[in-house]
Amino acid sequence: MSQIFNNPTANQTLFLSVRDVAHIVAQVGMPQVLARMAGCIQADYLRWGDFDKVARVAAHSPEGVIELMPIADAHTYTFKYVNGHPKNTRVGLPTVMAFGVLADVDTGAPLLLSELTLTTALRTAAMSAVAARALARPGSTTMALIGNGAQAEFQALAFQHLLGIQEISLFDTDPAATRKLLHNLRASGLRLVACDSIAQAVRGADIVTTVTADKTNATILTPDLLEPGMHINGVGGDCPGKTELHPDVLRQSAVFVQYEPQTRVEGDLQNLPADFAVTELWQVLAGHAPGRTSAGQITVFDSVGFALEDFSALRYLRDTAAELGLGQRLSLVPTLNDPKDLFELLRPVAAPLALAA
Amino acid sequence: MSQIFNNPTANQTLFLSVRDVAHIVAQVGMPQVLARMAGCIQADYLRWGDFDKVARVAAHSPEGVIELMPIADAHTYTFKYVNGHPKNTRVGLPTVMAFGVLADVDTGAPLLLSELTLTTALRTAAMSAVAARALARPGSTTMALIGNGAQAEFQALAFQHLLGIQEISLFDTDPAATRKLLHNLRASGLRLVACDSIAQAVRGADIVTTVTADKTNATILTPDLLEPGMHINGVGGDCPGKTELHPDVLRQSAVFVQYEPQTRVEGDLQNLPADFAVTELWQVLAGHAPGRTSAGQITVFDSVGFALEDFSALRYLRDTAAELGLGQRLSLVPTLNDPKDLFELLRPVAAPLALAA
Repeated sequence: MSQIFNNPTANQTLFLSVRDVAHIVAQVGMPQVLARMAGCIQADYLRWGDFDKVARVAAHSPEGVIELMPIADAHTYTFKYVNGHPKNTRVGLPTVMAFGVLADVDTGAPLLLSELTLTTALRTAAMSAVAARALARPGSTTMALIGNGAQAEFQALAFQHLLGIQEISLFDTDPAATRKLLHNLRASGLRLVACDSIAQAVRGADIVTTVTADKTNATILTPDLLEPGMHINGVGGDCPGKTELHPDVLRQSAVFVQYEPQTRVEGDLQNLPADFAVTELWQVLAGHAPGRTSAGQITVFDSVGFALEDFSALRYLRDTAAELGLGQRLSLVPTLNDPKDLFELLRPVAAPLALAA
Repeated sequence: MSQIFNNPTANQTLFLSVRDVAHIVAQVGMPQVLARMAGCIQADYLRWGDFDKVARVAAHSPEGVIELMPIADAHTYTFKYVNGHPKNTRVGLPTVMAFGVLADVDTGAPLLLSELTLTTALRTAAMSAVAARALARPGSTTMALIGNGAQAEFQALAFQHLLGIQEISLFDTDPAATRKLLHNLRASGLRLVACDSIAQAVRGADIVTTVTADKTNATILTPDLLEPGMHINGVGGDCPGKTELHPDVLRQSAVFVQYEPQTRVEGDLQNLPADFAVTELWQVLAGHAPGRTSAGQITVFDSVGFALEDFSALRYLRDTAAELGLGQRLSLVPTLNDPKDLFELLRPVAAPLALAA
């Protein structure tokens, strides 16, 4: 039996904990992690047609939502489990928690199980930067960051390192969130300005990032706040009944999305008619559709979080964990001497051992 | 930082390995595990209306399928990851591998991560027994078991202990599979008879269980093999293009299913017109619809594996692991000092530690 449970190689799943992913960021460095994840995302969006895509599968409840986000190409399958529970902070839990799996399409074997809470913040920021590189005015140096919660630092650093943003105006309805962000990024080299209102934060910004958590149809951004040439990175409107942008903001802009069928249901786009024209971002990245067409145009990336970004992030984690020798092997699925003999697992066993490492 | 990573209680996920579940079976005993899982399944089917149900989400590839199976009631969310790759045995892997998660609906926190490969065989057998108790002729003592692979022993033992089956006729196209089953169940108390053909195995059987693995539209059971009063437990036809029963077998029978929208796509039912009448099993269990209406009627349980059985199995595992003190804590999602401060995870950390136990 010890062979079945202690074989460290065959059909064992690598597990990356929260600490392992934190260790990757510490070892590789935040700018490099963001740059490499953005590279993986960009590369995967450029082969959009290779993927078997579905809108995520959501289970809604009064307090929030739990979602499964599967995607696959011909070789690799991934899925993410992610929740969104705005009131979680009251009971000391993160609003968003996530984990995911990368599996082999040819056998179905789960090869990697990883934390994705930290990773979701990293990949969402990297995705925002990929979109902004294609859509924001070249030479953008200032950003407004509306919503200073769990994901805000990651957005700030991605725009600093991948876009060249130097100054960020901050606003949150919770001043403690802004203080936390100021503290966390005090050594970042960014000029950070806490503001008293959304209007003050947005004024003169090249890019406006909205990343709020309330599950309501909020209007964080109204048309009167728009300025010519702005790029709006709308991250927090990502669920039916959870939006951030006044519909007229979208009407006055060129709107770009990840995967149209999903964004129609989940994005700020849900507040507009079904025939409101949008462009899938991969088309812009691939040169099939124009992005920004003039310096004065307003562009919106109506980001909802699509499974492809998690695919990209999971393959980055897999490769980086291998390079750095991180992770532990879990007995998540069995190794059998005879694959038709599942019953062999039930022959007398010694005391339980959860880890096969 | 050690508090964040080593807190053994708050927001940490319990992990049950393959060995832990094998240990549960060893400790509790196979008949009791099957009986209790059947009890959980029956209880959950009796509150069918409490569940938020969707057909499973499948990713098909030339070699097989990978599926996610979510379900939730007002308090508990579960999902299962499961593959089906008939050729896996050629590379030494099980045809079906699975794992799953049980989470808190109010917060989205994943409370339990468990192996479900072994558990799928247990819960599928328990589900078959629940259906057969409602549909087979009372006093059934003989069964034909067509397909003697990974799940066969579990089916045999469930029908022995929960239905009173005493004699089982065996057939598989691979004689080694039948030899394996004979060996594994040599001390079971069952009379086991290896047969040379499906016809020989089926003749005179009260119950016929088909649990084959080929991803083809096979005809394991043809109308000429039917006998009055038979109950057919069709387990292996569970995926588009993967069926076991000749359509006329269904036409000559009363057909019962778990969740009609899923079975129309995945079950043997896929080979029949969309208006072919079937009955959802919960209706029979709840007394809303008749099951078997005469001793001579042929009944078919067109089993495809529905997320509710995994829900039942996961809550059984959660409760039993707690009783027996099994499992280890995994840092799958983070514990934060300030739930809005995900960035705190990136402050300097010591060497990685995957387990928080």
